[in-house]
Formats: sequence, C-alpha cells, structure tokens
Amino acid sequence: MIPNLDAIKDAVKRVKPYVHNTPVMTSRLFNERTGASVFFKCENFQRMGAFKMRGATNAILQLPKSERAKGVITHSSGNFAQALALAARSLDTKAYIVMPENAPAVKVEAVASYGAEIIKCAPTLEAREKTCQENRERTQATFIHPSNDMDVILGQSTAAWEMINEVKDLDVLLTPVGGGGLIAGTALVQHYLLPESQTIGSEPFGADDAYLSLKMGKIQPSVNPITIADGLKTQLGDQNFPIIRKYVSNIIRVEETEIIAAMKYTWERLKIVIEPSSAVAIAALFRKQERFLKRKVGIIISGGNVDLENLPF
Amino acid sequence: MIPNLDAIKDAVKRVKPYVHNTPVMTSRLFNERTGASVFFKCENFQRMGAFKMRGATNAILQLPKSERAKGVITHSSGNFAQALALAARSLDTKAYIVMPENAPAVKVEAVASYGAEIIKCAPTLEAREKTCQENRERTQATFIHPSNDMDVILGQSTAAWEMINEVKDLDVLLTPVGGGGLIAGTALVQHYLLPESQTIGSEPFGADDAYLSLKMGKIQPSVNPITIADGLKTQLGDQNFPIIRKYVSNIIRVEETEIIAAMKYTWERLKIVIEPSSAVAIAALFRKQERFLKRKVGIIISGGNVDLENLPF
Repeated sequence: MIPNLDAIKDAVKRVKPYVHNTPVMTSRLFNERTGASVFFKCENFQRMGAFKMRGATNAILQLPKSERAKGVITHSSGNFAQALALAARSLDTKAYIVMPENAPAVKVEAVASYGAEIIKCAPTLEAREKTCQENRERTQATFIHPSNDMDVILGQSTAAWEMINEVKDLDVLLTPVGGGGLIAGTALVQHYLLPESQTIGSEPFGADDAYLSLKMGKIQPSVNPITIADGLKTQLGDQNFPIIRKYVSNIIRVEETEIIAAMKYTWERLKIVIEPSSAVAIAALFRKQERFLKRKVGIIISGGNVDLENLPF
Repeated sequence: MIPNLDAIKDAVKRVKPYVHNTPVMTSRLFNERTGASVFFKCENFQRMGAFKMRGATNAILQLPKSERAKGVITHSSGNFAQALALAARSLDTKAYIVMPENAPAVKVEAVASYGAEIIKCAPTLEAREKTCQENRERTQATFIHPSNDMDVILGQSTAAWEMINEVKDLDVLLTPVGGGGLIAGTALVQHYLLPESQTIGSEPFGADDAYLSLKMGKIQPSVNPITIADGLKTQLGDQNFPIIRKYVSNIIRVEETEIIAAMKYTWERLKIVIEPSSAVAIAALFRKQERFLKRKVGIIISGGNVDLENLPF
C-alpha cells in the first residue's frame, strides 16, 4: 500500500521536465531569532505559485494515453484548481474545474487564464460532488483528488526530495497540513532518505482536524474550520492518512495572530511573498522554538498566492 | 578619473566575504508578457535588503586602519543608513547616522538595530549637512556619501559583475537612478565586460533630474521630487555623473501608476517583495517594451525594504 523508494524516484524523474527545481533559501535573521539552522524550500516560486503543480503533473502523467486524451476533472477553489489547469495545458490535455459560484474572481480568472473549463456550482460540498460527478459522466474525464490520491502524494514528495538532495542531513522537515498530500509525500521521502530525522506538521487551531486525527488514530472531519490559512481547511483521506500516521512525528498548532505575524516577518525579512498556509509552518517553528534549537530544519514554503488587495496587515 | 577594470575586480574581491552573491531569477510570465528574456538580479535578498550594502562595505574597507577605527558618518533616511550601519558592525567599526527627526520610526529602528548611533536633525538639507559637519568634527569619523563616492560606486558595481558572470551576453542592463551610484557602477562593468551592450536607466517623471542632467549635459538639481519611489529623490554628483554621461545610453521615465502596477505585478508573479524604486525599472521595461523585444535584459532589483502597513495597493 505505502509506496516504496523506487516509486518516489520514478515520480522525481517523471515530473522533472515540467516543474521548477525551486531554490532553497536561508536567512541569518531567522537563524539568529530561532537558534536553529533553517532552510526554506521555496515552492512559492513553483509554476502557478505552489507545490500543487508537482502532484497535478504527476497524476496526469500517470494516466494511460487513452484516459489522458479525455481530460481531467477536479473540484477546488484553491491552488489545486490552478495546478491541474496549468499541468493539463502543459501536457496537452483538457482540465475541467468545478468551482463554487462564490469563489473569488481573482482565483477564477487565474484558472481560466490557464485554459481550463470552469464549471460553477452552489457553494456546498454536496453541490460540488454532484456537479463533479455529472461532469465526469458528461466528459469522461478522470477525476483527480487534490490530496487523497497516491500519484498526487508522490508528486508532492518531489519537493522534499529536491531539498534533501540539496541540503543533506536535515534533522526535521516541517510543513503545513491541509488535505495531507504534501505532508504525506514529505514524510515518505524523509523516511527513506533520512530515517533518523523527523517530519513535523503544522495546523491552525481553527482547523486542527489532522492534529485530532493523529490523536484519535482515525480521520476526523474538518468541521467549520475558521482560519486565514484557507488552503488548510480540508481534511485528510484514506490514501494519505496511513502514511501520516506511520511517519509523521507530531503536529504543532498555532493561533491566527501567530500566522499573520509569521507571514509579515517572512515578507519583511526574507523578502518573499508567502501565503498564510505557508506562514503556519513558520509560526510553528517560532511557537515551539525550543524543540528546534540547534537543529537543521527544512521548511516547505507551500505557496505564494495571495490577494494583495486583502492583506491581513 | 574613471576607474579601470582592475579597480572593479579589486572591489569584487574585497566585498565578497561580506555580501551575498544574490540569486538571479527569471520568469516565464515576464518573458511571455514582454517578448524579452528578462533576468532579475535580486538585491532585495542582499543583507539589509538592498544593493547599498555593497557600496557601504567597499567604502569602509578602503579606509586606512587609523581612519576606520574612528568610525564613519553619513546622512540618510533610506537604505544607505541601514547599509552603513550594518557594514560598520560587520567590520567592527562605529557608524554615526544623521537622520531627519521626521524619519519613519520603522527606518530609525532598523538603523538602531544594527548598532549605529543615530543623530537627529531638522528635516532640511541645511540642517542635515550642518549636523553632519558638526558630528564629523566631534567624532573624527569619515564621511561617506551614499552615492557620490568612487568607492561606493565601485562597491555597487559588484552586483552587475555577478550578474554578467552568471548570465553572460546580456544585451541590456536596466537599473533605477537615484543618486547615481548604482547606475554608474553598473555602466562601468557593462562597458568593460560587455562593450557592445547598453546600460539604460529609469526614473519617475516626478523625479527626473538624471534624465534632465543627461539632456542638458550637466547635473540638474532634484527640485521638489514627488514619487512613491522614495529612494530615487536624490540627485547625481560629480563623481558619478561623468561615468553616467559617458556610458549610460538613456533614461526612461515612468508614471506613478506604472510604478505601482509594476510593483504589484512583480509581487504577484515573481512572489518577491520589491520596493517602489525597483519597480521603476520594471515599469520602464513595460513602457518601452518594443525597445527590449527579443533582447536579453538584466534588471537590478535594487531592494525590498517596504512598510507593509503602508502599501499602495
């Protein structure tokens, strides 16, 4: 069930021509502040601005030719919508994206600009799934889940793969946790390449379903999540949870004020634009600083898609 | 009078241990939009967030030991204040910074955090110069001008040196023009390393003293400059103007709305934080797109120090 090292290596080779090997940044100020050695894998510089490009690309590349020709479909109003749209365009196939009718115009435009067909639905989970199902039948496109899909998880694992191959001997990998695709992929790579190290997750207190899932030993739904980190409102799935349960050490929860402060600090000091979901991991580092003292910490900056006209500061 | 290639090479070697060799970024979106091949030398990732670190470091390193021991002094409320403060700290000497009493608290704090002694004065040019003079006498510190000093110019030239050595065969180097230190250093390097290429400057219409100086063949004062690009309000000097006159092809002027739009576009697409002065060069590229068509253009992103609580969008 759990992919082996070769599956990861194959994914690395497969997506390489279509994604950026994003830079790893460091900052003396961050190191001085935290007492750790911090490395930032800048997936905000990834194509379409987030690591999701990796999973979407890998999933499409894994489809048999006949399936790929019919296109791919997903429901998302976030980064995966853009990722699947751009990956589909890069791979000469068609993407159908089901988006709630109240999705922000800026996100709808981004998806449209990558040439995807946008299908609007009512802003409920039922409407999303029903609309998605109807359109799968209509188009014969393959459904690709944003996070609970093994090919997506393997695609996301390639970010940690690149970082570990560049930085070597990291003690900890630290990521945000939303639907679980990024952290599952990261934990897998860490398990195979750095078995003595740890993968730690981070979540807002207002959307701590993964924290609770780990604690209870079974997937907890994300009920009424309230957080500025809108990429982290989704819940884990049966594909990624077993990996997370097995290979993730723990999940650190942070307050909204800590997320905003970490986001501002990173923009000011690193001079990079990161989205609130990425700031969650940095807030976790600041909150539990003593745990990371003198350790080499690799943080995956998940993305940089923000609405500059609606900043929290 | 005009430094030779060896002087540049010496400066490169001299500052190397104290400054970052900042990354050069590219963006498919920028290239698609402009039809040019654009390379961004990210001095916003430089120590203290701007290229000024280079000039300040070189100027201090060029002082005889006995002079260096007495410290350095300048008047600035912008990036050079922070640069001289941090360079002095790195080189174990003392910096005295004369700042107008109405300077933004955030800038005063930044300078103070680098351990400089801040000397407040009335917000007029006369008061600045008088206060500076009095404190030179009091402290015996050496005055270092933010842009009209050959060692500062040579220090600034090292950014273009690094970019040209990394990217090779650029057709155009494009920079903002404030006091003239950056563009003079850049033009010098381009002249020696890429004699067939061009250095082009960029300025706001509201602070176009360098444009007028080139046109009139003599330095024009910067009278009542009005622009969001506050780093570009200063005027050229007798050290840098001869270089600019000889080696800079022309200066493109841009509107304030173009500066803000270019800044926003860069934050959104490149996911990097750049200051308005840097956006001036990008606005110039957009405004005169036809001039850069199919050419390899190296833009020096001068800095990334902005007040996130006072953004123009």
